[in-house]
Amino acid sequence: MTLTVITYDVVMGRWQPDARGRLEKAAMTLYLERGFEQTTVAEIAELAGLTERTFFRHFSDKREVLFSGSSVLQERMVDAVRDAPPSVAPFDAIGLAVAAAGDMIGGAVERARLRQRVIDANDDLKERELIKMATLSGALAGALHERGVDEPSASLAAEAGIAIFRVAFERWVRGPGDVSLDELIDQSITALKSITQRAPS
Amino acid sequence: MTLTVITYDVVMGRWQPDARGRLEKAAMTLYLERGFEQTTVAEIAELAGLTERTFFRHFSDKREVLFSGSSVLQERMVDAVRDAPPSVAPFDAIGLAVAAAGDMIGGAVERARLRQRVIDANDDLKERELIKMATLSGALAGALHERGVDEPSASLAAEAGIAIFRVAFERWVRGPGDVSLDELIDQSITALKSITQRAPS
Repeated sequence: MTLTVITYDVVMGRWQPDARGRLEKAAMTLYLERGFEQTTVAEIAELAGLTERTFFRHFSDKREVLFSGSSVLQERMVDAVRDAPPSVAPFDAIGLAVAAAGDMIGGAVERARLRQRVIDANDDLKERELIKMATLSGALAGALHERGVDEPSASLAAEAGIAIFRVAFERWVRGPGDVSLDELIDQSITALKSITQRAPS
Repeated sequence: MTLTVITYDVVMGRWQPDARGRLEKAAMTLYLERGFEQTTVAEIAELAGLTERTFFRHFSDKREVLFSGSSVLQERMVDAVRDAPPSVAPFDAIGLAVAAAGDMIGGAVERARLRQRVIDANDDLKERELIKMATLSGALAGALHERGVDEPSASLAAEAGIAIFRVAFERWVRGPGDVSLDELIDQSITALKSITQRAPS
């Protein structure tokens, strides 16, 4: 168990010492040490020094530990589109949504990297992540429809936003860590604009 | 069995009467009538008037009947990027790839609709489709890297291409059928350019 304790200290210092945070830390540690499939809720609760009952007050199952953030992320991004003044163009509203995602996640690169390692190691989790992204894209398109944006522009702007976020996020979690997520998102937006504008109509 | 025979005649007339084509027809009919999960390879072979052995000469499993086209699609799209003259800009090379996909699929809207109905009815198949799209995006980005396109531009152009294809394909299979896939792809490309250009830098 010494390794586990060190893992906590070194890489998980950002997490809060509340019950939910302790459960997250314990789950991530076990998912990385033993694999996601091999870890039970009982083991997570034990390592966190809490009961299974407490676990289930915070998460519906062990997968939820990895994906509970996704619904909050979606809410923030959709709110950013809804809250943008009516004069803001669709692609700019999507840009605000992606920036909101960056603000929410960007402070915790080590946590994002650990989560990514858990997901990369398991095909079911990778599929789950793709589904969350597809759902998010649909929700963003819906928020643009509410602003009066038609098809196919709404879906394309939403998909472009997901592409910008995904590419920036990948570079952030897999890169050397010298560039912030915000900066990588800005680079992605600029790059996408430049690519589509260089092409003759 | 009368219904089954009628289904063949009316909607699947485009398929070839070879063994592979007959297996595809039989599989799709059963997936729609009984559900994908509830259908066995033995039943597919029986309805096609062929043996299970013949089925497995053409498909590795019953899911492969729905997804064997995806690898050919990926090959065509990657080839289109590779074959584009060096002077062609990244986004235009991706446009050629999406057009190649349109050429490959665009002639068989009824087949695409039936396949989509099977996939829409099953979460595992929806996940599989998302994974195929993610793999395709990675392959297109790789083909752009070979042309000397850097990150994040290569990944963003590839993701933009997938977005264009996905949005056009959705409108095609779910729409009234009065617009061709090629035309919907052109509309998607134009819409994406317009969206990203309207936004101030």
